[in-house]
Amino acid sequence: MTRAFNFCAGPAALPDEVLLQAQAELLDWQQRGISVMEISHRHAAFETMAAEAEQDLRDLLQVPDDYAVLFMQGGATAQFSLIPMNLLGKEASPLVACVNTGIWSNKATAEAARYAKTHIVADAQGFQNTTIPPMTEWDIPAQASYLQYTPNETIGGLEFHFVPEVESIPLVADMSSTLLSRPIDVSKFALIYAGAQKNIGPAGITLVIVRKDLLDRVMPSTPSVFNYQRIADNGSMLNTPPTFAWYLSGLVFKWLKRQGGLTAMAEINERKATKLYRFIDESDFYHNPIDPDCRSWMNVPFTLKDDTLDARFLQEAEANKLMNLKGHRSVGGMRASIYNAVPEQAVDALITFMKDFEKRCG
Amino acid sequence: MTRAFNFCAGPAALPDEVLLQAQAELLDWQQRGISVMEISHRHAAFETMAAEAEQDLRDLLQVPDDYAVLFMQGGATAQFSLIPMNLLGKEASPLVACVNTGIWSNKATAEAARYAKTHIVADAQGFQNTTIPPMTEWDIPAQASYLQYTPNETIGGLEFHFVPEVESIPLVADMSSTLLSRPIDVSKFALIYAGAQKNIGPAGITLVIVRKDLLDRVMPSTPSVFNYQRIADNGSMLNTPPTFAWYLSGLVFKWLKRQGGLTAMAEINERKATKLYRFIDESDFYHNPIDPDCRSWMNVPFTLKDDTLDARFLQEAEANKLMNLKGHRSVGGMRASIYNAVPEQAVDALITFMKDFEKRCG
Repeated sequence: MTRAFNFCAGPAALPDEVLLQAQAELLDWQQRGISVMEISHRHAAFETMAAEAEQDLRDLLQVPDDYAVLFMQGGATAQFSLIPMNLLGKEASPLVACVNTGIWSNKATAEAARYAKTHIVADAQGFQNTTIPPMTEWDIPAQASYLQYTPNETIGGLEFHFVPEVESIPLVADMSSTLLSRPIDVSKFALIYAGAQKNIGPAGITLVIVRKDLLDRVMPSTPSVFNYQRIADNGSMLNTPPTFAWYLSGLVFKWLKRQGGLTAMAEINERKATKLYRFIDESDFYHNPIDPDCRSWMNVPFTLKDDTLDARFLQEAEANKLMNLKGHRSVGGMRASIYNAVPEQAVDALITFMKDFEKRCG
Repeated sequence: MTRAFNFCAGPAALPDEVLLQAQAELLDWQQRGISVMEISHRHAAFETMAAEAEQDLRDLLQVPDDYAVLFMQGGATAQFSLIPMNLLGKEASPLVACVNTGIWSNKATAEAARYAKTHIVADAQGFQNTTIPPMTEWDIPAQASYLQYTPNETIGGLEFHFVPEVESIPLVADMSSTLLSRPIDVSKFALIYAGAQKNIGPAGITLVIVRKDLLDRVMPSTPSVFNYQRIADNGSMLNTPPTFAWYLSGLVFKWLKRQGGLTAMAEINERKATKLYRFIDESDFYHNPIDPDCRSWMNVPFTLKDDTLDARFLQEAEANKLMNLKGHRSVGGMRASIYNAVPEQAVDALITFMKDFEKRCG
């Protein structure tokens, strides 16, 4: 078996070490003669593993004690609705401030509009989502219930390299495609959420990190199963959690610790991104449209000078074991997603291939 | 490695064959050099696999064409709320008729009460949940929006061996712990739902089988991600589905087909249950409290004559590789869950152990 280099935007590459361990113990977890998939979430062995995963995550992100960590289902898309349900219950005239920087933030805004007035603080649409409007021009209503934004737009490849200063307004961030790629200061946020299928684990589990004092704001109509307070009170086991995804995320957390934690990952990730963007910028065959100050470390979209070569590029890339480079259907071109589990050699191999392709076709 | 016999109520045993295949291809699916967990749900290879899984399920259950099959997240507990959200949107005075037969149906009733008046058609509580009140005594309001019930109570071990005749009232069934254990006539139901972690696959995926003409009844406030119509329109890929759980469920469906389908499974399951109940009834050391006409084929709770022996029973069972026999905390005693993936030899081994234990301790 040869493992390919996998640039999929999500569900994305997982570390070989993690998959090898999961494979080795898939039918026989902890010498119990059963799979981790075949044990009750109420079993002490599972509970121990689950608690350890949470602690490892807390260690990696240095999550303060006054934050709850929830392991949920439904992806970030479910959170687009569950966040207003959980945070707006005490508001007479709920108002959600939204920063629109691309497809994902726009979707989050649309769902918030079911529950509140939404106010667009800044909109990158006027710049074709290629740059983040400067904060000096943001129009933040003082009475906003919270401000939501997307630190990394997975599709457009637009990323915040700063945390917006919003004074006392609770800050809510969809970190699906950036969480665990570098250290962050959790205390600056009211709520962080992330679908797992980028840097955390397999699709089917979603992390929510929420300041505990916000847990009393739920709308009374919220189903128990989506009520953050009840989920927190029950250690994310109000009902059966996605046990295998939780386990695998736990293995990823341990792998991250072995790599040296998030400071070490940030160095590697910055180096990977920098060399790929530098190569693209130096070429006049490949092009990335994003403002260099706002380029994503995780998702690098690029186009070929001649888009009739797209199909051939993808086909030859696959033949070289460089997989899943096709850009999102709404954007076209290519996208290289270079999450934590994509090794630096993968980026080197991609650049070598791109050079060679340009030489032959440019 | 010796595989144990696993009587866990859920997440429950999976077939060895299924786990072995998943293990063999965990890092290299379809010779692509990547895991099935590491590929986009929009990739043609994944879409093909996902569609095949749905077709296999339709074949097994003979799902009529006018029913949609949805692959969702959140477990049956999420459906307790999503069903009223999706079915009551057109009702001026929504009324949900509920049959309460134990812990799960009571929970479903409690969540429905957020959205509708609930009317208890029949309540087994008066019989300590040991029998199903006869249908002749059910009080079904003609104007009910739908009637919900739990064909198999996983905790109590109480099971319907008939489908209630409710005339034109839509029938909604939580089949989490019974779906795929035998053939059913889907056309008798308006909606069937089931968390996967019993007979379908790993925890984290939930099946909904719903008659298509009911898809226009959603409440306008329902989040897109929970809207059955939108999920159906998008082939259960409105957002990223739990891809590995879907894949593994697909392997289970193929395994079931190789076993001869649900008619064959029903024969095996009935035989397993019959021999275990017969042994329990013939003993005066073990006891099952359920009316013989309403005994679950899937979950067999039993108590020991002397409950101070419980801990020893469980310990010795584990030493004999008979795992997870502890009863639910709300009921106590023991519970042997004998789903599809629990082989007949497991039941034989359990009976042998129980005989021996009785001989030594009875």
